Amino acid sequence: MKNLERNRALLEQRLGVRFVIRRIVVRDLKKPRDSTVDTALLTDQLDDILNDPEIQIVVELMGGIEVPLAFVKRAIQAGKMVITGNKAMLAEHGREIFELARQSNVAVLYEAAVAGGIPIIKAVRDSFVGNRFESIHGILNGTSNYILTRMTDAGMEFAPALEEAQALGYAEADPALDVNGWDAAHKAIILASLAYGFWIAPASVLVSGIENITAADIRFADALGYRIKLLSTIRVEEGGEIEVRVVPTLIPKSHVLASVNGVFNAVAVRGDIVGDALFYGRGAGQDPTASSVLGDLAEAASRLRAPQGCAGFTAHELYGQCRPVADAISKYYLRLAVEDRPGVLAQIAGLLGASDIGILSVIQPEGPEDGPVPLVLTLHDAPHGRMVATAKSLGELPCMKAEPVLLHMESFS
Amino acid sequence: MKNLERNRALLEQRLGVRFVIRRIVVRDLKKPRDSTVDTALLTDQLDDILNDPEIQIVVELMGGIEVPLAFVKRAIQAGKMVITGNKAMLAEHGREIFELARQSNVAVLYEAAVAGGIPIIKAVRDSFVGNRFESIHGILNGTSNYILTRMTDAGMEFAPALEEAQALGYAEADPALDVNGWDAAHKAIILASLAYGFWIAPASVLVSGIENITAADIRFADALGYRIKLLSTIRVEEGGEIEVRVVPTLIPKSHVLASVNGVFNAVAVRGDIVGDALFYGRGAGQDPTASSVLGDLAEAASRLRAPQGCAGFTAHELYGQCRPVADAISKYYLRLAVEDRPGVLAQIAGLLGASDIGILSVIQPEGPEDGPVPLVLTLHDAPHGRMVATAKSLGELPCMKAEPVLLHMESFS
Repeated sequence: MKNLERNRALLEQRLGVRFVIRRIVVRDLKKPRDSTVDTALLTDQLDDILNDPEIQIVVELMGGIEVPLAFVKRAIQAGKMVITGNKAMLAEHGREIFELARQSNVAVLYEAAVAGGIPIIKAVRDSFVGNRFESIHGILNGTSNYILTRMTDAGMEFAPALEEAQALGYAEADPALDVNGWDAAHKAIILASLAYGFWIAPASVLVSGIENITAADIRFADALGYRIKLLSTIRVEEGGEIEVRVVPTLIPKSHVLASVNGVFNAVAVRGDIVGDALFYGRGAGQDPTASSVLGDLAEAASRLRAPQGCAGFTAHELYGQCRPVADAISKYYLRLAVEDRPGVLAQIAGLLGASDIGILSVIQPEGPEDGPVPLVLTLHDAPHGRMVATAKSLGELPCMKAEPVLLHMESFS
Repeated sequence: MKNLERNRALLEQRLGVRFVIRRIVVRDLKKPRDSTVDTALLTDQLDDILNDPEIQIVVELMGGIEVPLAFVKRAIQAGKMVITGNKAMLAEHGREIFELARQSNVAVLYEAAVAGGIPIIKAVRDSFVGNRFESIHGILNGTSNYILTRMTDAGMEFAPALEEAQALGYAEADPALDVNGWDAAHKAIILASLAYGFWIAPASVLVSGIENITAADIRFADALGYRIKLLSTIRVEEGGEIEVRVVPTLIPKSHVLASVNGVFNAVAVRGDIVGDALFYGRGAGQDPTASSVLGDLAEAASRLRAPQGCAGFTAHELYGQCRPVADAISKYYLRLAVEDRPGVLAQIAGLLGASDIGILSVIQPEGPEDGPVPLVLTLHDAPHGRMVATAKSLGELPCMKAEPVLLHMESFS
């Protein structure tokens, strides 16, 4: 809103429309506000918006799921356009929201929900509309990326890197959704659903966070020529099934996504016509998000002047199936802590061989005099289910001194 | 057109419209065609399009300026939407084209004119509509970038690198517009005009090409920590004047644009709200351009269903003035070939000092036993006019053995 006032004259000149802020709903009317806010507009009643027929566009930036979902549905039913940055709500309820929007012939716009100021929603929805998407890879959570960057550049462990991110305001007091992968997963679900034309069920997405990544993993990856990133991978498989996963992933240092550091986000799109395109920018923060909301406001205004067909999401269901998580294929990084005695490597290699999982490379640095030694393997393409089961079996071997650490590797082929 | 047929079902499902190709104008009806082309649609008469009231959208990909300009103007007057990839026509005649489009209430769409498949026009026009643009930097000519990349990576001189680009199909038989900077300049003019809301006169843009860059310049730049790129710089100066220049420029190796290699294009946008955002992709070629044309076709179709205000370009003229080329400020790289005798450096430094141009750094590698020695200076911010005049005076010193080479440096501050 601060940013709407700041560039109001320019925006209205560019668009030829005038924006009037009618109401601002807040949780706590008594909280002190920025002097730019006209306190006469404040209310703590959502109904003050829903029941005002003059209000044509609502901007929902509440957080949470149930309250905004009920509000958004009522706003749509009242014929109001909705602009939202609520990725969790869209990822979990996109299907019903857009079905309702279609029936009510209003648009729901959500550029702010994915990758902050990067206009990736409009790119996928409009600019690349003539493409079949072969893959979309994204670094979609700035907090995780900041932590991994500090772990890489300064050799920090996860906990102090998280503390630093919190001290700098890059991580919330409760960082769970950021570091457990689900914030990025919500964004990946929205992107994948838009690209493939059907709403992806969160249960069909493989998600894991960065909490268990250690500085040692980052060093081993570095020695192998990789960086570890919380990577969102969206891909159409042979046969047309869609795979979506958001997991810490080893990516080659030479790939441009390996150079996306700190709180930045990036999305690499591969379309069958456009080829490779990459978008990069600030993924979070008040201002980049505001830029996306203003872009959506402009679109909403032009839709008000000329109602269009598309409600912001069009189901086309060309593919319509997610690949079961257990069947998704990947290369893997496996770090084991083993007893330092003869025959151990043979035992591990034997178990992998019996599961038909090929070994790409092995690093066994010298360990401490006493105690377990680290053993790092990179492994050929294998289905996730079989790989996880095999890692579990390996973990049960008597020579194992800690839980195996299993990470995906991505070669972008 | 091949690509429209390829993904027609998907595109029509996503958009809910049906595209019918009514006519294809070609120069030579007898030329053999791809088997996907329905020869019954071919004509060599532009009037067959202009006089057909059923045709609502025309796609102009002719090349040249006068013929397409006359055609586009007549199509607009006939109420047809125009999609064009003709950057030279738009850069030189954008003002009259969009004025006519506004009067006729049709849109002219031109995503394909700038940076191939990268959706930078829609990003600047729509997604970032709430931003004031502080700067836009672009690598907008793939041919020049390929040549400079090869000169950097393989130490080649300009001429053989150009020959290689031609052999690989990255450069036209007549590569003039690519290597003399004007292809990139046309794109920069379009971007700058869209961002600042008034049509920039080509005469107010500083343009120079890469023909005179030598492998030695690239080595010296490398030693100083820079890469040489044909960089388009668009910037609003204090006081609101706009500067547009397209010149070979030293950019710090650490900046992301320094890593954009080969035929790739990139555009870095700095908005007052969104902050820094970067777009990267294939800048030319039939397929990336086709992706942009298909995106524009989708937009044209939605505009046909619901006529909108904006004609593809909105004059707002918040700034409305270009900074005179002579007043534009930059740091510079200056390579001299001087006589190897005492007092030469003092003479040069004295002349720079008299012009109030500060020296940032000096490299004087050992030269050959006999003959001139290279002397490379980097220079503090100076107005272009004064810098050029000073370089000219330096060139007239008796100790000078060749024309001074003067290049811009950009620090992206």
